[in-house]
Amino acid sequence: MGTLLSNNPAVAGARAYFEQLQARITEAVEALEGPEGQGGARFRSDAWQRPADSPLQGDGTTRILEGGRVFERAGCGFSHVSGPRLPPSATEHRPGLAGAPFEAMGVSLVFHPQNPHVPTVHMNVRMIAAAQPGEEPVCWFGGGMDLTPFYAHEEDARHFHRACRDALVPFGDDLYPRFKTWCDEYFYLKHRDEQRGVGGIFFDDFSELGFDRSLAMTRSVGDGFLGAYVPIVQRRVDQPYGEREREFQLYRRGRYVEFNLVWDRGTHFGLQSGGRTESILLSMPPLAAWSYQREWPAGSPEAELTTRFLQRRDWL
Amino acid sequence: MGTLLSNNPAVAGARAYFEQLQARITEAVEALEGPEGQGGARFRSDAWQRPADSPLQGDGTTRILEGGRVFERAGCGFSHVSGPRLPPSATEHRPGLAGAPFEAMGVSLVFHPQNPHVPTVHMNVRMIAAAQPGEEPVCWFGGGMDLTPFYAHEEDARHFHRACRDALVPFGDDLYPRFKTWCDEYFYLKHRDEQRGVGGIFFDDFSELGFDRSLAMTRSVGDGFLGAYVPIVQRRVDQPYGEREREFQLYRRGRYVEFNLVWDRGTHFGLQSGGRTESILLSMPPLAAWSYQREWPAGSPEAELTTRFLQRRDWL
Repeated sequence: MGTLLSNNPAVAGARAYFEQLQARITEAVEALEGPEGQGGARFRSDAWQRPADSPLQGDGTTRILEGGRVFERAGCGFSHVSGPRLPPSATEHRPGLAGAPFEAMGVSLVFHPQNPHVPTVHMNVRMIAAAQPGEEPVCWFGGGMDLTPFYAHEEDARHFHRACRDALVPFGDDLYPRFKTWCDEYFYLKHRDEQRGVGGIFFDDFSELGFDRSLAMTRSVGDGFLGAYVPIVQRRVDQPYGEREREFQLYRRGRYVEFNLVWDRGTHFGLQSGGRTESILLSMPPLAAWSYQREWPAGSPEAELTTRFLQRRDWL
Repeated sequence: MGTLLSNNPAVAGARAYFEQLQARITEAVEALEGPEGQGGARFRSDAWQRPADSPLQGDGTTRILEGGRVFERAGCGFSHVSGPRLPPSATEHRPGLAGAPFEAMGVSLVFHPQNPHVPTVHMNVRMIAAAQPGEEPVCWFGGGMDLTPFYAHEEDARHFHRACRDALVPFGDDLYPRFKTWCDEYFYLKHRDEQRGVGGIFFDDFSELGFDRSLAMTRSVGDGFLGAYVPIVQRRVDQPYGEREREFQLYRRGRYVEFNLVWDRGTHFGLQSGGRTESILLSMPPLAAWSYQREWPAGSPEAELTTRFLQRRDWL
């Protein structure tokens, strides 16, 4: 495994970074959960290796916490795989590398909270390398983070976007606006004409700062995640809610499922090409509802979520 | 609307048939629900017309019943649409018609019962016509029905398959075996290596009996639906169940969502091409659950559902 890049010490460093990021984030989530004796849940850790006859080779660790006090389902995966043929969907900007041997590693997470006032969150950081036979490998980076609230708390969206900007600003003033727009465009449910959430940042095919600085930027996004999300959880986790808010949360989670299974390129490609299903689907909510043309009273927080809050706008 | 076929009396007859089939099926479901005063639910009827600026033109009626005594969500839609360009996915066997103006009509239903001993069911019958400019329209038919149980009741699967065979046998002895195999192949979750259910029949691009007999066969499938499904509902609806069965039902419904959003060509194409979202997604369950590598005790009915029951086999 890792034949393309394994002799490169900078790359070994990247793997160590991703593994340590996963450890750091899952520890912080367990701290939010609180002591086990008081209902705080713990992550299960599932180390896996791709079977020898699989098209993808490699290993990873899927960590998942279910039925917690704060999180109903929180999945955080590390994986490091290689394959004989880079799928065309993996790089828009390098058509010459489609079909080349590749290697990919990264961390991906989705957290589904219990309390409908705490937003769902997604974060991903990844590095991809590919090389045509006899040529030097080309490396690029991708990832981002985005927030999917059920109720409109403006200060949460502003805090999250400020943290995204702060993670990127050391690497160039133009990055946050570019990646923010990219995120709005990516996390969009065309069949509903709805944004998935209030966005954040999204980037792909990124190598314009050179290997070292592009990796450093990607690490800065990973490192920025806890500061972007944890204060929001702490602010909302004890906010009271009832059946109505719970019902709305389950209904909105249906949209999350629709986005991930219909539009998300990574999920869709992974499932169709023989990726590890249970690791790919750690993004699924624990429970989701559908209801025909469900409507909430005009002017209610539920009705205004999509019409007023989940709109592309400047959050800074 | 219906410019390709509207002058053809046989086609006007097909529309009348589909509308009357929808009425007949929804009435039978309401009879199963029982009197309104005793918790029996009724269908809402939502007649719609595609907006003038939509790529698809046409009309339809979506009927949906939610929160019933017998059915937690039961959707049954009629639609009759036309469009300027037939999608390539709509006919495998007539590549020369891809991109041609087309017209499609039919009835589609998915019923999600309350009681986990009552299986989920899907049925669809449709007629498609397409014509290159200046040429005669070509017509073909598609559809089928399939059963998705949560618990292994062999006599239900056998009854359903016998009813499928009985609907087809007047049109040729080879049809049931062909359409049964086609169904097993179509309703297969590749990313889980699982069948969606115990199958039934599936056919597409069908015109080999000529227009009149092909339509008659399609009608026979539609007419056979109530006899295939209602006796199963009646046999199971009062069978006791508890939290465990309910939990398993919600978990297995997650598979239904995965199939429909990831693999079902009609759903996927409809959502991506601007079809009517709420009508397409009447197939979604009212509530569905996901849980990481969820396992049930070896030998339990839940563990044996996929390993023993949802296997391709001869049900006659």
